[in-house]
Amino acid sequence: MARVKAAVKRKSARRKSVALRATVKQPAKSGKAKKIEPQYVPWSAVELEDLNPLLQRQFVVGQEIMVARVLLKKGCIVPEHSHHNEQLTYILEGSLKFWIDGRVIVVNAGEVLTIPANMPHKAEALVDTVDLDIFTPPRADWINKTDRYLR
Amino acid sequence: MARVKAAVKRKSARRKSVALRATVKQPAKSGKAKKIEPQYVPWSAVELEDLNPLLQRQFVVGQEIMVARVLLKKGCIVPEHSHHNEQLTYILEGSLKFWIDGRVIVVNAGEVLTIPANMPHKAEALVDTVDLDIFTPPRADWINKTDRYLR
Repeated sequence: MARVKAAVKRKSARRKSVALRATVKQPAKSGKAKKIEPQYVPWSAVELEDLNPLLQRQFVVGQEIMVARVLLKKGCIVPEHSHHNEQLTYILEGSLKFWIDGRVIVVNAGEVLTIPANMPHKAEALVDTVDLDIFTPPRADWINKTDRYLR
Repeated sequence: MARVKAAVKRKSARRKSVALRATVKQPAKSGKAKKIEPQYVPWSAVELEDLNPLLQRQFVVGQEIMVARVLLKKGCIVPEHSHHNEQLTYILEGSLKFWIDGRVIVVNAGEVLTIPANMPHKAEALVDTVDLDIFTPPRADWINKTDRYLR
């Protein structure tokens, strides 16, 4: 954990956006690996984390997939950051404005944005928004609560 | 392609469920790899494929993530099958009954089921359903239209 924090701090010092490199350790692939069970998870049973007054989040983690429901109030800004995790954003309700790859893209309900690994991006909620964020591999900084750029 | 079909046929012969082993070839990771662009994709612009009279599907493919919207009419049955791709199913509307890992699990709107790689599963739509299926890696058989167990 200390190493992850130090890495984030060093990266932050080099440029303003935050780059997150850590990943989640997967169980070793041996012949005696523990059997992986299916998980049945109602979203209503998943902790809804308050990250800041405009931002809440809950997520489900599989092996290599993480799916998060992110609730953003109008005006919420996700500062520019990047991560080695590939991301796919699907807006279920509302609207997010993205700054990515030199472009500005407004993603509305019923629309998808794919964000390649390591590509810096920033977002702003134009209205109250329900955003589904999908990652591979899972975001270790979210799981470990070291995602200080959001808090 | 012929090899994929043959593999599916051999597997089908061994047991009734269908196992799909093929994956999508990723671009080589060299220093001169082509830059990967973000993709902005309204679902309304994505082909909605008719697989059978009760089943329609559309999907977006990133690098290692595929996200599909699957529309199932009441009574639609997805025969037992398995695949090396990890799956996470999020029911947006409706209800799917799953047979998986010796259990029967009804997954309703607002609920998630994680399906580990290579785990056989079968599903039935209890009502008209909108199902979000997330895979890693992307389903080559869906992209290549060799998913005959659904057609």
